Amino acid sequence: MMKQKQKILIVGGVAGGASAAARLRRLSESAEIIMFERGEFISFANCGLPYYIGGEISEKSALILQTPQSFKSRYNVDVRVRHEVVAINRNDKTISVKNRQTGEIYLESYDKLVLSPGAKSICPDEFQSERIFTIRNIPDTDRVKEFLDTKKMQHAVIVGGGYIGLETAENLYRAGLEVVIVQHSDHVLATLDFDTACDVHRHIESKGVQLLLKHEVKSIAEHDGKLIVAFNRDNEIVDEVVTDMIIFAIGVQPDSSLAEDAGLTVNSRGAIVVSETMQTSDPDIYAIGDAVAVVNYVTEQPAYIPLAGPANKQGRIVADQICGIDSRYSGTQGSAILRVFDMTVASTGINETVAKKNGLNYEKIFLWSTSHAGYYPGATNMSIKIIFERETGKLLGAQIAGYEGVDKRCDVIAAAIRAKMSASDLAELELCYAPPYSSAKDPVNMAGFVIENILTGKVKIFHWHDVEKLQKSDHVILLDVRTPAEYDNGHIDGFINIPVDELRGRLDELDRLKNIYVTCQIGVRGYAATRILVQNGFDAYDLSGGFRLWRSIFGAKTKPQPRNNK
Amino acid sequence: MMKQKQKILIVGGVAGGASAAARLRRLSESAEIIMFERGEFISFANCGLPYYIGGEISEKSALILQTPQSFKSRYNVDVRVRHEVVAINRNDKTISVKNRQTGEIYLESYDKLVLSPGAKSICPDEFQSERIFTIRNIPDTDRVKEFLDTKKMQHAVIVGGGYIGLETAENLYRAGLEVVIVQHSDHVLATLDFDTACDVHRHIESKGVQLLLKHEVKSIAEHDGKLIVAFNRDNEIVDEVVTDMIIFAIGVQPDSSLAEDAGLTVNSRGAIVVSETMQTSDPDIYAIGDAVAVVNYVTEQPAYIPLAGPANKQGRIVADQICGIDSRYSGTQGSAILRVFDMTVASTGINETVAKKNGLNYEKIFLWSTSHAGYYPGATNMSIKIIFERETGKLLGAQIAGYEGVDKRCDVIAAAIRAKMSASDLAELELCYAPPYSSAKDPVNMAGFVIENILTGKVKIFHWHDVEKLQKSDHVILLDVRTPAEYDNGHIDGFINIPVDELRGRLDELDRLKNIYVTCQIGVRGYAATRILVQNGFDAYDLSGGFRLWRSIFGAKTKPQPRNNK
Repeated sequence: MMKQKQKILIVGGVAGGASAAARLRRLSESAEIIMFERGEFISFANCGLPYYIGGEISEKSALILQTPQSFKSRYNVDVRVRHEVVAINRNDKTISVKNRQTGEIYLESYDKLVLSPGAKSICPDEFQSERIFTIRNIPDTDRVKEFLDTKKMQHAVIVGGGYIGLETAENLYRAGLEVVIVQHSDHVLATLDFDTACDVHRHIESKGVQLLLKHEVKSIAEHDGKLIVAFNRDNEIVDEVVTDMIIFAIGVQPDSSLAEDAGLTVNSRGAIVVSETMQTSDPDIYAIGDAVAVVNYVTEQPAYIPLAGPANKQGRIVADQICGIDSRYSGTQGSAILRVFDMTVASTGINETVAKKNGLNYEKIFLWSTSHAGYYPGATNMSIKIIFERETGKLLGAQIAGYEGVDKRCDVIAAAIRAKMSASDLAELELCYAPPYSSAKDPVNMAGFVIENILTGKVKIFHWHDVEKLQKSDHVILLDVRTPAEYDNGHIDGFINIPVDELRGRLDELDRLKNIYVTCQIGVRGYAATRILVQNGFDAYDLSGGFRLWRSIFGAKTKPQPRNNK
Repeated sequence: MMKQKQKILIVGGVAGGASAAARLRRLSESAEIIMFERGEFISFANCGLPYYIGGEISEKSALILQTPQSFKSRYNVDVRVRHEVVAINRNDKTISVKNRQTGEIYLESYDKLVLSPGAKSICPDEFQSERIFTIRNIPDTDRVKEFLDTKKMQHAVIVGGGYIGLETAENLYRAGLEVVIVQHSDHVLATLDFDTACDVHRHIESKGVQLLLKHEVKSIAEHDGKLIVAFNRDNEIVDEVVTDMIIFAIGVQPDSSLAEDAGLTVNSRGAIVVSETMQTSDPDIYAIGDAVAVVNYVTEQPAYIPLAGPANKQGRIVADQICGIDSRYSGTQGSAILRVFDMTVASTGINETVAKKNGLNYEKIFLWSTSHAGYYPGATNMSIKIIFERETGKLLGAQIAGYEGVDKRCDVIAAAIRAKMSASDLAELELCYAPPYSSAKDPVNMAGFVIENILTGKVKIFHWHDVEKLQKSDHVILLDVRTPAEYDNGHIDGFINIPVDELRGRLDELDRLKNIYVTCQIGVRGYAATRILVQNGFDAYDLSGGFRLWRSIFGAKTKPQPRNNK
């Protein structure tokens, strides 16, 4: 049970820290609660920073959700901004705090200590210039904003194709700059796999933003108010760009030096190790948010997944624990979403890279689905990838790229993963249907139907990465079942054309000794065709995602659209 | 196991029937499949009909998803339109079919028979006029459309405030007509409760559409090309309206006479009784779609819930069953959605009326949540009501009215209900967050937090319908904790004002012998205030939904906005 008057110190006043403080007070009027924030602001809208740069969020005040004053009057919490906690003295249960205005260092004792230091941007030390930026907090953002407002900026290089990188790219583009994005791997957004990311690449390129994949920054030179950036690809310098500014967005790392210095256990990545009660290796010290290691909800393995939603939930849990309520944190599944220009990209659960690393026996499907009933105006398509365990059908993860309704489908699948539903349970979900919102069979239902057909052996599938090998084989038939007009308009080399609606009458044209690999535009007619073939004694396979996906991956680059800075 | 060559007859070619036929063929190339459709069209977009009237869907051809020809070539199904099945002869396993073009009646034998006759609009026989319409199929819609196109229509009365009624009202409004909606009960949309429906009433009235609640049509007279409609309220004629046309949308009933005549079991409402394998009382006859009784997934009691999504799923299940796959239908939870002018209204699970009828010990909460992060432009509010079981926390139902993101939250809750999650599990859902899409604590999470606080006794709540009684009591304090400015701008009679941020310092003003009933704008500050009060020894209750909900229910009618037919 809780002591009558506990003294609780919270280090860090954003997301997790602020959530913990508010919940602590609601649970205990008697506790003494002091929150220390090194910076000037508490409870600011971290995730809104890129939009402030682009001007979509026009007032900086909108980003400041709480002030020390509002927190004091609502929650009776003593908030000390510009006070940096410089040491934890675990033996006498005190912390050393540096008042950054006066330089004075003082001690504060605690019964319970909550660490919510967050993460810090990784910025390579070797490059130094006033034209090089990172974006993590309000002062960082002010620097960029002021630079944009006071100097005539025409060109920016974004190093890193992750969430912050793409959001910042979009916002600088909206602010009128030419933008180049540099990404070390073969695709943007590490939460996605390469195949789904290709849809995002096409969209970024369609905006006229240059995307340098598999590139790294080799050197940066400053000359005449410009930066000259040289890029490596496979360790060779391949390109040079002259730019006005560079934003490094190559990721974040746990800001855990305070914890580490105090001898608390951190993992190899520097994340503070906590139990499901959010306790560190010292039971009187809790840690939450972007500084801690979590359990991946899907793999049940340790992971580092810094996200705002989990940080807030952990803040609540830590408050419960301190006040004697046994709430537990059950892990992070990595639900994340991003707007990239007009596109929405969302994912939840794990991707193939993680599935492979965990040695899981998985399968995947690709769908291309309309956001709402096709007969109602304004429907757009979304690309859906779902990963599931081959034996159990357990849902492992989903990736969706598209426009309207992407967030909805990803959230529904996120809920299904949380509920430990099987992939074919998706078929049974009863979702809301009216023409402006969905179809009678929602894309999530369709995914369930497809997975069920695979799990029960009604259809066998193959993938875009199998095509090259099949093209070289003499023992297979590659069959495109679209209409002749579609086929003539572009098809995969080596595929012959028999439209699905003619297939029953033309089975004699097919060699029964050969396996048949079928494609159509998106996989639906291919499924119908493989069912006809299989029931007629053929061994047939359907290309998941069809020609549409294959072309997104292997097709020509999208021609940029005329620029529209709206 | 399935016979080598089964003969399967399907009665009805829309939604369920068409789904069954397609799935049957994919499962069995050898079966003989004949589909009979009384009307001219199969597989048409029923749910799109109102939008065709309003012109949002401009081409009728968009509503016709499949033709007999396309179904024949894709699925090798013999589709006979304008063939009406007039009798089922169960003893010799045949049906009698009337060719509506020739008048000829012939027999067709079956191994398995699938009934998908749908539902028919209820239209009171006592009113007959070419100016009186219902909307259920394409010919109905054509009649309305032709009437609108050829005559100068200025005014319409819609009888019935259900889904079809409101969709039609909106579309006639968009087509430029003055519209009056007449509803027999105290609120539109029987899936909603009165409280949530009040938000919809306000929105409809804001458009200048007249809403006559608790009214019934008493008489209709035709005079000089106009209809004169007299309305009853509490059995007294209270109003008379002159109109150009009347659309009856007072509901549908199962079109089950064929089944009933054949001696198949139907329930008191006329719905065909089926097992979870979709078999009727005759094991060789299946029935699906809007003609059948289902099990309510939440209450596990028989129900009649005609919806397109379930009809399609049942079509799939019946095909599986006929082909020897043991798929089961697990019940309908009633997930439904509607656009009413600019508003989206969605619900899933059961409402209070059904909860009461089933004798459930339930509680409810009301939230008023932003669609996405408040600091990012364009966020709108939605009104959320969630019903849950008091002892177990089991989720029973949700109703949401608002704009952006309503469909998403309802679908997430629908998935949670299907997964049999508890209401407080909503708190743990990890949903996708970026500022344009949501908040770090999604409205669904917030609902979970609130419910958890109630279930664990951290907060006690009261409701809008408790206020009147409390106002008359001398033994309670009614406390409004908003700011003085908010309070002065409108408050509930009898409530005194102490802002939450001053409450700790003004506890002496409150009589400790009295229970305190707290309100704020939406319930959040009220929660903080009750926590302060309870921890200081008071017995305090928070008004769920706050002043916002109370005013939506009891406040003045919304003033119509200037008309915008966009």
